[in-house]
Amino acid sequence: MPTVHVTRKVHFNAAHRLHNPEKSEAWNEEMFGPCSNPNWHGHNYVLEVTVAGEPDPETGYVVDLGALKSVLNERVVDRVDHKNLNLEVDFMDGVIPSTENFAIEIWDQLEGHLPSGQLHRVRLYETPRNFVEYYGDGSSS
Amino acid sequence: MPTVHVTRKVHFNAAHRLHNPEKSEAWNEEMFGPCSNPNWHGHNYVLEVTVAGEPDPETGYVVDLGALKSVLNERVVDRVDHKNLNLEVDFMDGVIPSTENFAIEIWDQLEGHLPSGQLHRVRLYETPRNFVEYYGDGSSS
Amino acid sequence: MPTVHVTRKVHFNAAHRLHNPEKSEAWNEEMFGPCSNPNWHGHNYVLEVTVAGEPDPETGYVVDLGALKSVLNERVVDRVDHKNLNLEVDFMDGVIPSTENFAIEIWDQLEGHLPSGQLHRVRLYETPRNFVEYYGDGSSS
Amino acid sequence: MPTVHVTRKVHFNAAHRLHNPEKSEAWNEEMFGPCSNPNWHGHNYVLEVTVAGEPDPETGYVVDLGALKSVLNERVVDRVDHKNLNLEVDFMDGVIPSTENFAIEIWDQLEGHLPSGQLHRVRLYETPRNFVEYYGDGSSS
Amino acid sequence: MPTVHVTRKVHFNAAHRLHNPEKSEAWNEEMFGPCSNPNWHGHNYVLEVTVAGEPDPETGYVVDLGALKSVLNERVVDRVDHKNLNLEVDFMDGVIPSTENFAIEIWDQLEGHLPSGQLHRVRLYETPRNFVEYYGDGSSS
Amino acid sequence: MPTVHVTRKVHFNAAHRLHNPEKSEAWNEEMFGPCSNPNWHGHNYVLEVTVAGEPDPETGYVVDLGALKSVLNERVVDRVDHKNLNLEVDFMDGVIPSTENFAIEIWDQLEGHLPSGQLHRVRLYETPRNFVEYYGDGSSS
Repeated sequence: MPTVHVTRKVHFNAAHRLHNPEKSEAWNEEMFGPCSNPNWHGHNYVLEVTVAGEPDPETGYVVDLGALKSVLNERVVDRVDHKNLNLEVDFMDGVIPSTENFAIEIWDQLEGHLPSGQLHRVRLYETPRNFVEYYGDGSSS
Repeated sequence: MPTVHVTRKVHFNAAHRLHNPEKSEAWNEEMFGPCSNPNWHGHNYVLEVTVAGEPDPETGYVVDLGALKSVLNERVVDRVDHKNLNLEVDFMDGVIPSTENFAIEIWDQLEGHLPSGQLHRVRLYETPRNFVEYYGDGSSS
Repeated sequence: MPTVHVTRKVHFNAAHRLHNPEKSEAWNEEMFGPCSNPNWHGHNYVLEVTVAGEPDPETGYVVDLGALKSVLNERVVDRVDHKNLNLEVDFMDGVIPSTENFAIEIWDQLEGHLPSGQLHRVRLYETPRNFVEYYGDGSSS
Repeated sequence: MPTVHVTRKVHFNAAHRLHNPEKSEAWNEEMFGPCSNPNWHGHNYVLEVTVAGEPDPETGYVVDLGALKSVLNERVVDRVDHKNLNLEVDFMDGVIPSTENFAIEIWDQLEGHLPSGQLHRVRLYETPRNFVEYYGDGSSS
Repeated sequence: MPTVHVTRKVHFNAAHRLHNPEKSEAWNEEMFGPCSNPNWHGHNYVLEVTVAGEPDPETGYVVDLGALKSVLNERVVDRVDHKNLNLEVDFMDGVIPSTENFAIEIWDQLEGHLPSGQLHRVRLYETPRNFVEYYGDGSSS
Repeated sequence: MPTVHVTRKVHFNAAHRLHNPEKSEAWNEEMFGPCSNPNWHGHNYVLEVTVAGEPDPETGYVVDLGALKSVLNERVVDRVDHKNLNLEVDFMDGVIPSTENFAIEIWDQLEGHLPSGQLHRVRLYETPRNFVEYYGDGSSS
């Protein structure tokens, strides 16, 4: 049976600050510049989650997009939307909230929780000009 | 010689209904919800077809995009645009018109009919928020 | 106090057919071509509703976008999403579902029902390449 | 001579919180919900500034877009990008940072500072789904 | 009867150079910078043409979009697509091809040639970040 | 440590002509049609460069996007923006400027010059409807 990749796009916004608490403010300022502003800044994030699998012969679905959307909301969007990524998101605790790290943590929140299919890719846009993609530890694009 | 992937985007619109005729209306209603509305609904589909190959030294082309567009129109767009996918499209006959199944059938209509290069990927957007990708039976992303 | 225009974008999809039931099938076929396909076709519509007013000094809002979204859903989206515009939408009864006519009817469903402010414009995209704008009977752009 | 409207789009991101300091936290929480999160949230703003005027016969320009971009950067973008709108932006001091109020204040920063032409409209997207337009006190769309 | 505005989007690409032949090369270089490169540069233009009118009671159309597209192609797109605006486009002869001037000339090519309705606005994107709007000599936005 | 792919989008515009100087004008005209117009045409190109690597534990970055942007500007954008690809770009000398060939040459300009990480993919849009992807000689998607 053929494998198809299905992607669902969702969005949220959040405040954050790039900041390594083990380093001095001067180091953070030099390394991150305005992205380390102690008064925060924020983004409209766009998250695209891709699930791989064989379409179910009875439905034609790799994954029910309504069920997938519910998982994305419960596991990710509801926990980060209108939140401060440094202060309020448990799964980002102790993690520098770069887009790279955020995508990895989102993967970990989703893996094993999909209604069907295999998690294939997390693509996260921080702005329309910058995005990251994560395929899990053992895979590559 | 290097391999380059070339993608052409086209669009069309169509009506459809997610419906498994071997199941009861109640099963379809429960499984597909409003997507199974017997009075139909529809979408503006966006189709991106990717062809892989080495650029021809005389033209710099992997594939002539004008010739590719003609194939996409003849083999796909002209047969589905402003049509009902359940009732009027021969290559969808007997297929539940999920985006997954539709992408697989589009692949089968295109493979072996390209002006040059190898069919690499069919990406099909049902809405700007949902899309599927198909790489053929033996490949993966 | 200054007037500001606030716009909220929502989306839905629907099936329709351009068809004037007072005319012959031949007339409809000649006038509307594939848009009159008796087996229907459909679109992902994008609706942008603009409200004009003075920001409330206590909130800075012309209109609460959450309340506006609720009105858009109740008065429009929930009644047309995944529906057949010719057969199932009461406020389109007896109306040829061109984008022009559809926008006028959406205006009539919204006027007088906004949480605050004045309805200024209904912009309706049938495809990313075609859209209409309606400003109500007495106004113009 | 004909009047032409010229628009330049720029972008920035910022943190903010909808909060009326003259009201209780309970009032703010009820009125603004998650938009009033004391830990902030943020957006990728898109700003479109429209200038009206007659094209200069020697250049064909209503306004030199390079000079306009410099004004937009100096007067707005450099003062708000990667900033907290409630805490760090002098021209937002004492203003509830709704998109409506923010657009009015941006107008006031730009009017009288354009290289040529008349400021016609400030359009500000807070998200791709929500935007406001401001035409100055005495005008309308 | 209500007035509705209908917009059709088309696209083309062209080469051009901002250059006033009555001025010296030094003047052009200083005024236009890289936009005056004697070896040309180019753009993917997007043209949005808006027509105002009352929907025809028999069709629901302000203007038949297929007929409008034909006029846009014949009067504009076919004469500028893949062309050099300074050298090869008769209606741009003697005109500095700024976006402002180009929009005015496009208006003049279209006015009086529409299938139905009144020409209301020509919106021309030179890039996704810069666009101009022209409403004809006697009107304004 | 996990591998993440980071993409930065930049844009520029240029003139070009598809033309093989070893062939006759008639051959070029037949092969390339209007794309071979001796008076040139042009495009707004969009370039997406993807870098693969492990996030640095101290910064969370695979690559500093500011440093990456500087490299993209110095190595590519500043050398092609507002230029004629056939006449003025040294790294395109002797290369037919198809999108395929252009992407390969951009890869060669970037490889070995990144601030950190491995160059993974060059994606180049010639128009919003056509793009190519290049993964280097030895890799594939």
